[in-house]
Parts: sequence; C-alpha cells; structure tokens
Amino acid sequence: MQAAKQRSWNRRLEAKQKRIEKMKGITSNRIIPTHQIVEALETLIMPGDRVVLEGNNQKQASFLSAALAQADPKKLFNLHMIMSSISRPEHLDLFENGIADKVDFSYAGPQSLRMAQMLEDGKLAMGEIHTYVELYGRLFIDLIPSVALVAADKADSAGNLYTGPNTEETPTLVEAAGFSSGIVIAQVNELVDELPRVDIPGSWIDFVVVADQPYQLEPLFTRDPRHITDIQILQAMMVIRGIYGKHGVKSLNHGIGYNTAAIELLLPTYGESLGLKGKICKHWALNPHPTLIPAIESGWVESVHCFGGEVGMEKYVAARRDIFFTGHDGSLRSNRTLCQLAGQYAVDLFVGSSLQIDEAGNSSTVTRGRLAGFGGAPNMGHDPGGRRHSSQAWLDMMTDTNPLARGRKLVVQVVETFQNGNKPVFVESLDAVGAKKDIGLETAPVMIYGNDVTHIVTEEGIAYLYKTDSMEERRQAIAAIAGVTPIGLKHDVKKTEKLRREGLIALPEDLEIRRTDAKRSLLAAKNVEELVEWSEGLYEPPAKFRSW
Amino acid sequence: MQAAKQRSWNRRLEAKQKRIEKMKGITSNRIIPTHQIVEALETLIMPGDRVVLEGNNQKQASFLSAALAQADPKKLFNLHMIMSSISRPEHLDLFENGIADKVDFSYAGPQSLRMAQMLEDGKLAMGEIHTYVELYGRLFIDLIPSVALVAADKADSAGNLYTGPNTEETPTLVEAAGFSSGIVIAQVNELVDELPRVDIPGSWIDFVVVADQPYQLEPLFTRDPRHITDIQILQAMMVIRGIYGKHGVKSLNHGIGYNTAAIELLLPTYGESLGLKGKICKHWALNPHPTLIPAIESGWVESVHCFGGEVGMEKYVAARRDIFFTGHDGSLRSNRTLCQLAGQYAVDLFVGSSLQIDEAGNSSTVTRGRLAGFGGAPNMGHDPGGRRHSSQAWLDMMTDTNPLARGRKLVVQVVETFQNGNKPVFVESLDAVGAKKDIGLETAPVMIYGNDVTHIVTEEGIAYLYKTDSMEERRQAIAAIAGVTPIGLKHDVKKTEKLRREGLIALPEDLEIRRTDAKRSLLAAKNVEELVEWSEGLYEPPAKFRSW
Repeated sequence: MQAAKQRSWNRRLEAKQKRIEKMKGITSNRIIPTHQIVEALETLIMPGDRVVLEGNNQKQASFLSAALAQADPKKLFNLHMIMSSISRPEHLDLFENGIADKVDFSYAGPQSLRMAQMLEDGKLAMGEIHTYVELYGRLFIDLIPSVALVAADKADSAGNLYTGPNTEETPTLVEAAGFSSGIVIAQVNELVDELPRVDIPGSWIDFVVVADQPYQLEPLFTRDPRHITDIQILQAMMVIRGIYGKHGVKSLNHGIGYNTAAIELLLPTYGESLGLKGKICKHWALNPHPTLIPAIESGWVESVHCFGGEVGMEKYVAARRDIFFTGHDGSLRSNRTLCQLAGQYAVDLFVGSSLQIDEAGNSSTVTRGRLAGFGGAPNMGHDPGGRRHSSQAWLDMMTDTNPLARGRKLVVQVVETFQNGNKPVFVESLDAVGAKKDIGLETAPVMIYGNDVTHIVTEEGIAYLYKTDSMEERRQAIAAIAGVTPIGLKHDVKKTEKLRREGLIALPEDLEIRRTDAKRSLLAAKNVEELVEWSEGLYEPPAKFRSW
Repeated sequence: MQAAKQRSWNRRLEAKQKRIEKMKGITSNRIIPTHQIVEALETLIMPGDRVVLEGNNQKQASFLSAALAQADPKKLFNLHMIMSSISRPEHLDLFENGIADKVDFSYAGPQSLRMAQMLEDGKLAMGEIHTYVELYGRLFIDLIPSVALVAADKADSAGNLYTGPNTEETPTLVEAAGFSSGIVIAQVNELVDELPRVDIPGSWIDFVVVADQPYQLEPLFTRDPRHITDIQILQAMMVIRGIYGKHGVKSLNHGIGYNTAAIELLLPTYGESLGLKGKICKHWALNPHPTLIPAIESGWVESVHCFGGEVGMEKYVAARRDIFFTGHDGSLRSNRTLCQLAGQYAVDLFVGSSLQIDEAGNSSTVTRGRLAGFGGAPNMGHDPGGRRHSSQAWLDMMTDTNPLARGRKLVVQVVETFQNGNKPVFVESLDAVGAKKDIGLETAPVMIYGNDVTHIVTEEGIAYLYKTDSMEERRQAIAAIAGVTPIGLKHDVKKTEKLRREGLIALPEDLEIRRTDAKRSLLAAKNVEELVEWSEGLYEPPAKFRSW
C-alpha cells in the first residue's frame, strides 16, 4: 500500500502542463500563429500519443491534418491515430511518413483502396473498425485521447467555438480530450470578437489556430434528382405503400442514396395520392437533404434532427426553424452523437442499401481490395436490444403471442438485384468473408446482419422477413425477390404463389402498383433547379450541382 | 403548394418570443427573482406544453418542481411531463393537482408504489417507459420539449452554467429544448461573477433562478461495506475468478448494489492473490463509488467515466485526475448520455441484479403494485447489435464457427436464489406479465431479456448461458443453480454432473473456491471508516454513513 501512495495521480495533467510551458516560445496566449502550426504540433504532441483527428463525414480538420503530416518523423512518431473518417490523402500519409503507426477508425470511404493496400503492405497497424458512436464511446473508456485536433467555423479570443451547422462530432471529441487532461487544438476559419452563439465553451479548449483556408466540407448528402431512375421510383413506390404505409412508420432515418432520395421526392405526389400525409414520415433523423425540401414544403415533415449540415442548405434551414434544430442565431445545430443515439433508439425505421447480400440477408459493402469501414449504418440498422418504448410500427413487427413478446425496429434494405457492371447483389458468400482472412480481422466486416433485417426490397418485390418463422422460409423469401442472381436462380418459382398468399413477399401488383406508372414524372422535383424553386430560392446548391 | 407557402415556419420561435415578452413585468434580464418563480412559470409555460423536468438518478431540479406544483391549475393544465426519474412527491402532485396529465419517463423508484396506484385510478395518462438514453433520443425526434426545467450548481450573469460533478443529463436536456425554440430555465445554487468552468454556454439558456436551497442530491451509489454478507463475498469470488478472470474482462460497468461493491472490495485482496491485476477491471463506466477506492489506490484502475457524481467523493476525484474525467478546475465532469453510450458500446461487461428471473433467464424488477421503470440497465444489459469492434472478452463469447460469427457482450446477473422475505427469485412466470395486463402496457416490462444474458451467478454457482445450444439446455443450466426455488426444484440433479463436465455450470469447487474462505475478512475495507483511510482522508462520507 505504501508504494502505491507515492505515485503521482496527475501524470497526464503534469505532462500537459509541461507541453504548454514549452509553447511559450511560440505564443503567449491560446492563439497559435498560422505559420507556426507544424512547430506547435511538434511541441504539443509526443511520440506514442493517442491523437484523435476530426474527420467527420463532411467536415474535415484539413489544416491540422495537413500540418501534422508535415511534422518531422524524428520528432513525432508512433502516433496512434483515432479518426472517425479516413477521408484525405494526408490521413494515410501520416503512416507512409512514419509519424503514425496505428489506427482506430469508423469509415474510410474515399481512401478505402489505399487503406487496404497499406494494411497488406504492413505500413499501418490496424486497431479496430467501429461505427461512429462505438468509437466515440471508446474515447471515454479505453481509447482516451492525449490530443484532439478539431475544426470549427469561428473562435473568439477566449477560445469559445462556433461550429454552427457543422457541429457534428466536434463537442464529443473535445469533451473526451478536454476533460481527461488531454490537449485540445481547434482550427478555425476566422477569429472574431463576438460569436453568433457558443457551441463549445472556451474553457474546454487549449489552443486555437486560424487555418490558411476554410476547413474542407463536402456536400455529401446532395443527390441530383436527374439521376433517379424509373427502377428507383418503382422501389420507392413499393417502400411507401408496402412498408411505410402498411406499418404506419412515423419516425425514420434515411441515408445517402438515390433510392431514398426517390422516396423523399414521391411523398408529395404518390404518397399524397394514397392519403398518407400525416400518417407516415413525420419525424426524421437525417442530414438536411435537399431532396426533402418538397416534402417539407408540402407539410409532411414535423421535425428533422441532423447528424451534420449540408452545403447550400443554410438559408433554407434558418427559414424553417419549426422543422430543424437551430440556435438562437437561426443556424442549424447538428450533433452526430445525439442524432445517432436518436437514430438508434427513437426512430422506428432505418433504410439502407448494400453492395452484397447473402441468402440469409447478411449484407456488406466490402469488396475485395477495399476496406471502407462502417460509418453509422450498423448503429441504426439493427434492432436495439435496449429499447423499451413502443410505437405502432414497432409493435407491428411483433409476430409472437408469447407474453414477453416485444416489437422490433424496421430495418429495410433497398437494392437492385444487380449492381452497375452486372455484378449480382445477391451472392452465395459475402466478399467480407475473404476480407476477414486477407486483412486478418477477428470477425468478418458485416454491415447489417441478416437477423436484424425486417424487409428487403428489390425491383422484383418486397420480402417481409420479419414474418418468416425459420431460416429456410427466410431464404425462400429472399430468393423469391432476388431476380436472376445466383441466389434468385435457386428459387423454386412454384413456391412464389404460396409466399405471396402468406404475405411473406409482395410483388408490385400485390401492392396495386403498376410498373408502367413508375416514371420520373412522379418526382416532386426532377432536378436541382426545381428543388431551388420549391425552397423559394432559399436553397443555394453548390456550383457543381447547378446546370442552369 | 400555395396554401403551404403562407404558413409560418417559425411558430415555436414566435410563441417563445411572446412568452419572453410577457416576462418583462417580472424581470428585465435573464435572472428571475426567487420569490417570483411560480408567476414566472405560469408566464413561460402554456397549457398543453411538453415540459422536460430534470430529475436525474441523483440531482433533482427540486426548486423548480416544487414551484411548478404550486402553479394555478386554472392557468397551467394538460402539461405533458417528460422526466427521466420520478423521484419526488411533487412530481406526482403535478398530476393530483390537475397541472399535468401525461407522463413519459424512465425510472420511478422512490415513487413506484404511488405511481402504480395513480395509474390504476386513472389520475395520469401513461406515455411510455424508457431507458434513460431512449428517452433522451426521443427529445430530438417525437418528444421535442417546449420547456426544459434544469438544475445547475452556479451561473454567471450571462447565463453560463457550472454543473461540475453532477453534470449528468443537464446538457442533453438543455440541447433538446434550447435548439428547438424551446424555453430553458435553470435553477442554480448560486450566482457568481466567475465560474470554475463553463459546462453549458449561456447562449443556450433563457432564464436563471437562484433556488431557495441547493438542489436535492442523493448519495445513491454509496454502499457501506459493513452490510456486505459472506454470501455476497462468495458470489464476488466466483465472478472474479469464473467470469472476469476466465474471459479477461478489461472494461465494464457496475451498478448500485452490495454484490458489485463486494467485487470492488475483493480486487485488491482475492483478485491480487489470483495474479489478475492489470489483466482485468482496468476501464470502468460507473459513478465514483466509494467502494472502488481500494482498487484505485492499489493500482487496479486506469480510468473511470461517470454518469453522475457521488456526494463526498469530490476531493478524492480532484486528487486522482489520471483516473477520473475532470475539468481544468479539477472537479469531475460526469455526463449521463456519453457514459450510457460508452456503457453500451465500449465496455465488455455489464453486471446487474434482479428481483425475479424466469426459467429462460428473463428478468424483471417489477412486482405487483409497483411500477419502477427501467433506468439505464437495459441499455447496458444487452448485446449491442451495432457493435463491430472486438476485444478478448467479447471474442471469448463466440461459440460458433460460422464465417460470419461474432463475439458478444457479457451480460451477467448476480442474484441470491431467494430475496429477503423468503421470496424465490427464480419463478415460473414474471410479475411483469401481470403488470402488463394491470396497467395496460403494450409489452411486459422486462428489464433484461434472457437471450441477452450470458452468465447467471447465484450462491450455488455460475451458469454459463452463452455456451448453451438450445432453450432446453439453457433452462437446465439455470435450474441447476436455482437452489430450492420452484425452478431449481424442477432440476434433475443427475444432470448436474454432465452440465459441470461440459462447462455449462461451475460450482464454487470447480473454481477452486472454498465456501469457508468467503469471509468478510477478505474485504479490502470493512466499513466506511476504512474507505476514508484508503483515500488518505480525501473521501468525505455524508453524515449518515459516519459511525465513528
């Protein structure tokens, strides 16, 4: 007992104070001169540190990541990087340059090819792949950061931050480092005397640096309606009638994709014709999708809580304060952690898409040679075992008369039976199984597990998997809508009638949908210009989406 | 399209501004005079409003709840209350007095008897019962609050709040109302010129009122080691050796209870003798339990993230900054939302207890005539379907060779076969089934579902349920450790040997534990005074725990 008593219990704080002391040569306050950022990082970070680098879905701490990649690997090495998104080339340069050697992450979309190659070449040590919120959770348990590098719009001289529409994950990363004697460094687009509002208090921030250019921000959730196909419209009609309408789905999440954009754009037309307004799609956990504008303007939507912002939607959001979460300044307050929590527990339905689905309904977006990670989908695309409240749609999934039976979340996969390039979506075995072996993962990187999926929708029809009683019945229902893929070809078409009669599958005609009605003319907006019109000019699309 | 265009999109904001305008008769700034709080609430709240009232596990907005209960029911009625915890008599007086008529909540421990009676008498309309984080999630989706009534330690004149060790759920409630044009009113213990740190920015807060006395705060997580029994020590030895040690559990959550207090107090003695230090119990999601002090002082614990604070632990926490999350001022930063998120996704094990368990392992704390709700247990006590990262303990639960097999969370129930009063814990049917009918709930209020439970520990032994292949085998394993309860008596003792051989159950002797060794002398601290000694006098127990 005596020996233990002599240890210091404030080692992290003492280390922090020492590093801050050394900063006196660079700055006398909390503002780091822009041109001295590399030197500052070499002073504030130590070899072996756990560094959380903000790379959201959209907003990137791009000035800080570029600066870190320029550090001298003789001074900074063995860093353990924690990044929710590996999006920029320099995120991987850190490993090529010998500055970092280990990574824990969630999503590596844009860098998935290089990432897989570097892993194979032994150029980086893999920690684990997570969903966003899983990774955030670990920041408070066993991945407590030594340093957080984050991005904000504006700061004042006291270090208070304005993150506005793109608040995203910034408060969570700052809380993890700032309250564990870690060092928090924020890049900002500008220093101002007065902030529109405070998103993160200055007492949580150690240093601020004005970036040489605004942080990188991608309009990831903008889908131009021009690219929506008739097949996507057919599927959207099936979803609206055969799932949202049938079960009375009032709260939901939509992700990125033309499939879900088509659904959003059919609510004011096809949805209206079915008399579903006010009965479905009232409460949303999703980013401010431009394709949701017509549904909002037509009075379908009561509320939208956002993971992040969307470039061009700022004025529209500020003018629709009853719908969106905004600060007293009128601009959006997004929050990735809280929106994922809401998307997991408080909404009734998740809809996603996939590159591959096996005969049991397991799905994956891994393809050989690419390691894309998970992002947020698995967090929302499963039946949350800790949910206890009920709703109409949730109860509608209850097929059991056991006195302890409960409802479940609707987890919907919408796919066409073949991807671009004529690759079948329905496959005997997921590429994820091969990736597990190639990369040496402990488990195969499955995005959504089959036992969580309640519905699969293809251009052939809907499989109501929640109604199936056995794995065999489940396989049959999936095969019946899998077209001429290897899985679909296994299907005994004689069983189709029985599956339809029992309501385990529905073809478009069973839903009173004529394939010939599935036309682009049904879309409430057929292009970006019409979205702008619906918004009364408030939506300001980025240049690359403007064609007029 | 034209009609929709004419609607106002800022109705909530306009309503808020009107109410704030009316406050000019009461205050010219954001500080409400203490004696005018009832009048202020009658001005700021309108009939039919959704009011979220802070009642954490520990901290209660007691001044505001008492004031609201004094409102004139001719002015304020039909309120829809949202309360994570229904703890104080006036929480239910609101319904008796005709001010509120509907409630959504998580936990009603201290008021569970009256709550059930009022429901039966039709004096309140039940919304839904949630876990804490489920309820928080709904605040951003379909239970967006009109008004939030919260509690903080200190405010400055700009409305910035210091919530310190008892931050708990305050930031989440404030974010939900403050960013949806709701009205946020904070009671504080004192107004100061300078805060130790800012926990919640003033721009999120509308009004502050200095309470007539400090908010209610209960030392809920303090367990006096004097009350720990030899049976609890025996069970704790089994848990340490047969679960934590066997599976290498490094990160975990403990709740309230003498069972888990016993485990904490055996780490530096029995755990040390097994050579487990550094191999188990390094990272914790739990409140600052006084009974964890000896394990911390002996170097077992690397980190603790807290849901809330604990009365008397302030100085100890401030002196152990490497272990706890603290602000630059040295005091704890708790956060119920983030700690629940971490407890769900980032820790490997949850351990709980229960009043009833059925033959399939489903458990409930509902007893006839009492409606206690769920609190946080179901959120942590289930296998999170959205988890994708692996760890030693998680992988150890994998019993399947399927290429898509994954690990799972360890969910442990520790119970004695009989409760106080000689009521069997293992029962044929849970009282929750009756409660479902009595109260008219849509589903039975099950705390932890059997299919999530990996281990049950009784004074008889451990059932390793994760290893069972069928419901029949599961029932046998549970019955084998259920003693002479109705479930235990069904057990064919001839099967016991087979279950032991196959590792489906373990008796103390199988774990090399002698029942006669399970003595209080093994506890690292036998009373509160010894906890204070271990803490070098830093722990300052509340008066009711002092006996010296």
